Amino acid sequence: MTLNGHSLIAGETAAGTNGTTYGINPATNEQLEPAYTLISEEQLKTATDAAADAFDSFSTLEPEEHARFLEAIADNIDAIGDELVERASIETGLGIERLLGERARTTGQLRLFADVVRQGDFRGVRIDPALPERKPLPRADIRQRQIPLGPVAVFGASNFPLAFSVAGGDTASAFAAGCPVIVKAHNAHPGTAELVGQAIVQAVRDLGLHPGVFSLIYGSGASIGQALVADAAIKAVGFTGSRAGGTALMRTAAARPEPIPVYAEMSSINPVYVFPGALNEDIETLAHQYVASVTGSSGQLCTSPGLVFVPDGEAGNRFTGAVTEAVTQLSGQTMLSGGIASAWEHGYNTLESVPEVELIGRGKSGPTANAPAPAVFGADLNVFTSNPVLHEEIFGAASLVVRYKGVEDLIEATSKLDGQLTASLHVTEEDYPVASALIPALERRVGRIIVNGWPTGVEVGHAVVHGGPYPATSDSKTTSVGTLAIYRFLRPVAYQNFPEQLRPAPLQDANPWHINRLIDGRPEQPR
Amino acid sequence: MTLNGHSLIAGETAAGTNGTTYGINPATNEQLEPAYTLISEEQLKTATDAAADAFDSFSTLEPEEHARFLEAIADNIDAIGDELVERASIETGLGIERLLGERARTTGQLRLFADVVRQGDFRGVRIDPALPERKPLPRADIRQRQIPLGPVAVFGASNFPLAFSVAGGDTASAFAAGCPVIVKAHNAHPGTAELVGQAIVQAVRDLGLHPGVFSLIYGSGASIGQALVADAAIKAVGFTGSRAGGTALMRTAAARPEPIPVYAEMSSINPVYVFPGALNEDIETLAHQYVASVTGSSGQLCTSPGLVFVPDGEAGNRFTGAVTEAVTQLSGQTMLSGGIASAWEHGYNTLESVPEVELIGRGKSGPTANAPAPAVFGADLNVFTSNPVLHEEIFGAASLVVRYKGVEDLIEATSKLDGQLTASLHVTEEDYPVASALIPALERRVGRIIVNGWPTGVEVGHAVVHGGPYPATSDSKTTSVGTLAIYRFLRPVAYQNFPEQLRPAPLQDANPWHINRLIDGRPEQPR
Repeated sequence: MTLNGHSLIAGETAAGTNGTTYGINPATNEQLEPAYTLISEEQLKTATDAAADAFDSFSTLEPEEHARFLEAIADNIDAIGDELVERASIETGLGIERLLGERARTTGQLRLFADVVRQGDFRGVRIDPALPERKPLPRADIRQRQIPLGPVAVFGASNFPLAFSVAGGDTASAFAAGCPVIVKAHNAHPGTAELVGQAIVQAVRDLGLHPGVFSLIYGSGASIGQALVADAAIKAVGFTGSRAGGTALMRTAAARPEPIPVYAEMSSINPVYVFPGALNEDIETLAHQYVASVTGSSGQLCTSPGLVFVPDGEAGNRFTGAVTEAVTQLSGQTMLSGGIASAWEHGYNTLESVPEVELIGRGKSGPTANAPAPAVFGADLNVFTSNPVLHEEIFGAASLVVRYKGVEDLIEATSKLDGQLTASLHVTEEDYPVASALIPALERRVGRIIVNGWPTGVEVGHAVVHGGPYPATSDSKTTSVGTLAIYRFLRPVAYQNFPEQLRPAPLQDANPWHINRLIDGRPEQPR
Repeated sequence: MTLNGHSLIAGETAAGTNGTTYGINPATNEQLEPAYTLISEEQLKTATDAAADAFDSFSTLEPEEHARFLEAIADNIDAIGDELVERASIETGLGIERLLGERARTTGQLRLFADVVRQGDFRGVRIDPALPERKPLPRADIRQRQIPLGPVAVFGASNFPLAFSVAGGDTASAFAAGCPVIVKAHNAHPGTAELVGQAIVQAVRDLGLHPGVFSLIYGSGASIGQALVADAAIKAVGFTGSRAGGTALMRTAAARPEPIPVYAEMSSINPVYVFPGALNEDIETLAHQYVASVTGSSGQLCTSPGLVFVPDGEAGNRFTGAVTEAVTQLSGQTMLSGGIASAWEHGYNTLESVPEVELIGRGKSGPTANAPAPAVFGADLNVFTSNPVLHEEIFGAASLVVRYKGVEDLIEATSKLDGQLTASLHVTEEDYPVASALIPALERRVGRIIVNGWPTGVEVGHAVVHGGPYPATSDSKTTSVGTLAIYRFLRPVAYQNFPEQLRPAPLQDANPWHINRLIDGRPEQPR
C-alpha cells in the first residue's frame, strides 16, 4: 500500500495544514518517510461533523451488516500482509514475532465483537409487560434497551501499535456498540496507523456505510487531541497511555458544557505475591518466568510485573539469586522511542539513588539505539511501604523485589498500594489460607487476580478484565479488553407504552433479532 | 417512636457538636421540634471509618441474609405506621395520600432489590473455561464477577422524603450491591429522615450486621456534605437535587486524589409532543391530564412536564383554551419549603417578563403559606428556541405551551434541548410516520420516551430508566430508579487460573448460589 502521509477524514485523504511530523526508527534514531501532515482545528471539525452525521445510520444498522463491517476490517488488515508488521516493527522496535501475535489479537478481537453484535446481549433488552388490571394503578408496558452514546474519540497506545491503536480494542468495541470513531493517531507509529486506517476506510466503503463512521487524524496531542475531546460531537473517549496524558483528557472532558466519560488506561505496577509454599517448588523456573515477564517487549506492557513480594530467608535468597543470574544474561531490546528510553533511564536512576534499594541484577545494553540494560532491584518491605517513589511505574524492563517477613504484613502493604490492573499470587495448597485472607484486599485494588501465572499476556474474551481502580484507569467499572468493553459506549433508554409499530426491532414482540431478553427480570423463554 | 434529634452513626445516637437546625412546617412556616444537632468533620470521620470497617463483612453476605436485610428495612418502615407519613406531611406539605403511595413505593423497591439479590444476575458472572490444548498458546481459566465499589454517600431529595431519601432508591440499590451507606439527611425533613434511619439501624441490629453498614448524618450540605464526598473511604455518590448542588459534588469528586463516580439526578423539563392526530381525539381530557401532571405534588416532581409542543391552528387553540379553563379552577398547594416557593416565584417572574411569552392560565393561591397559584404560559416555537431562559426548569407548578407550525420543526427544536429525563408523545396512528422520524432525536436527549401518557408517575421495575443525558443527570449510562440502578455501585474483577477452593461462591463450578452465568459468552445450561 502507498503511504500518503495524511489524515483520513470521512473517507478522504486530508493534507494537514498545521506542520508535519515523521516516524522515527528507534533502533537507529533515523527519520522514516513519508512526512505526516498535521491537521488544524478547522480540519478536525470536518471529521467530528461527519461523525455526528454518520451516527443516525450507523447506530441503526441491522446486526448482520454491522457484524460484517467488523469482519471486513479484520479481513482488510490481514490482506495488508507483511507490510503492516514490517512497518510496525521499524516504527516501534518491536519484533516481527511479537507483532504477528499482536495482529492476530487485533483481528481476533474484531471478529469476536462481530460475534457479540450478532449475539445481541449488549442490547440489554428488559421488558416489563403492561399489567392493565393491577391495583391501585395499572402498569404500563415499559421496554428498555441500550443505545450507543454517539461519536467516540480514540487515542492509541505507543506500546501496542495494532491491538490498542487504530483498530484496537477501543475502536472495535465502539464500532460494535454502534458509535462512529475518530482515532487520533499516535505520532510514534504514523505509518502503521495509516495502513490500518486505510483498511477501515476500505471496509466503510465496501459496506456502503456513511464515510463519517471513521476518521484517522494526525495532530499534536496537546492541541488537536484536547480539541477532539472538547468537541461537542464527541460523546466518549478511549485512551491508553500515560497518567499525565489520561488525566489531562479527564480534566478537559469534565470541563465541557456537557461532561463526557473518559476511559483511560494509565499506569500499573502489577504486584506479584510469592508465598512461602511456592518457594518449595522449582525456584529456578519461577525466577526465569519472572524475568521473562519483566523483560518481554522490553518491559513495555501495561501488565509488566514491576513489583514482586518474596519471603525473607534462605528460599527467598535462592529466588533472588536465580533472578540475578537470569537477568544478567539478558541484553536490552530497542524501546519504542528515544523519549520512552530516556524516561526509563530516569526511573532507573531514581530507584538506584534510594540508599536502601539495591541492584539485584542488570543485563547488558542492546546493540541498537534505545536498548537499555534490563534491571531488577531489591528492597525490604518497610522500605517499600515508606517510599512513595518505589510505588511508581517505571515503563520498561525494570522491576523491584520486595522481601517480607510474615505473610500477615502483605495485607497492610496491599492496602497502601495504588489501584492496579492486576495482582498475581504464587501459591501451593499450604498457602491457600493466607492467600484467601489477602484476596479481599486485592479485589479492592485491582481488576484481575492471577493464581500461579504472570500478568503479561492478556487474553481477549468474555471474562477478562483489563481495568482497575484509579490510577490504573480513570473508571474502575469497565475494562478496555474483552467483550465487556462494549458497555463503555452504551446507555439505557426506556420506551413506555409504545405501539408495536413504533418499537425498535430488539424490543418488538416478535424479537426479530432473536436476542436474549429479560421479561419481568427473568430470561425470556426461547421461541 | 421518639425523635432524638441526632445523627445515627454506626448504630449509635451521636449528638452533633456543630450547631442545630429545625424542620419547618411549610404550610405555616412554624419551627418543628425537636432541634437537630449538626455534626462536625471529626464526627463524620467516625461514620466513614465505620463504613470502611463494615465493608468486608457486608460485601460478602450470603444472598439470603443480604436479601432479608433489605426486607427487614421495609418491614420496619411499615411498622412505624401513621407517624411516618404524618411527620413527612408536616415537614414537606405533601398530602397523606401521596405519602402513603410514596411509602409503598419505598418499601416496594426495597423488596424488589431483595429479589434482585436472591436472583443474582447483578453478580455478572462470566466464565471462559481453560483451553489447555489451544494453539499457539493454551488459554487459562478466567472468571469474572461484579463486586461492590465500597461505602456510598447518599444525598436525599427534598421532594421525595421517603422514596428518594434515607431508604430510597439510591440506598436500596447500594445496599443490594453490597455497599455500606452513609446518608446525609435533607435538612428540610429531619424527623422523617430520623424515623427511617431508626428503621434501618434496627434492621442492621436484628440481622447482626456490622453497625458501620449504615449511618445517617445531619450537617450543612456545603461543609459536611462536601467533606463526606471528599472522604477517602467513600467510593461513590448518589444525589437527587438541584443542578448547582449536583455539579458542586461532581467537582469535589473529580478533584479527589482518587476520583469517584457521582450519580446526580438534577434538572429536567420533560418535553411533551402533541401531534396533530392527537387533537382529533378528546381535547378536553388531554388538557386536563396535562394540567394534572403539571400541578400534582405542587409540580415538585423531577418528571413534571414543563414544556408541551402543540400545533398551531384551531385544534391547538381549543387545547390551550381547555388548559386555561382547567388551570384557572385550581388552587396552589403548599410547596416543600419557603425557599423552594421563592425560587418558583422567581422562575414565574422570569417567564412573565419575556415579552413574547403570554400567560395562558393561572389558578388561585392556596390557603396555606408557600402555596403559589399554578401557572401555564404560552409561546411560539421560534420564541422558545431563541430564548435559553425558556429552557430552564421551574421547579413547581408551572409549564410552557409552545405552538409549532409543522411537525418537521420539532426535530430541530429537539436537537436544541438539553438532556432530559423523559419525553412524551401524544399520537394517533396517522402521526406514526412523523413520530418515527422524531424518536431517534429523542433517544439522544432523554432516558425514557412515553407514548400517549404523561411523564409523572415513575414505575419501579426492571425496564424503567430514570436518567438521561447531562444536565438531567451527571451520568447518562445509568438510572436512579429500577433494578438497573444496582450497576452504579459495582465493578468487574477477573479471577484467572483460580483453584476451586479459592474461588468466590458465585464463580465456583458447583454454582452454589444457583445464578445465571455466561460460559464463553453464552447462557450456562441450567443444572
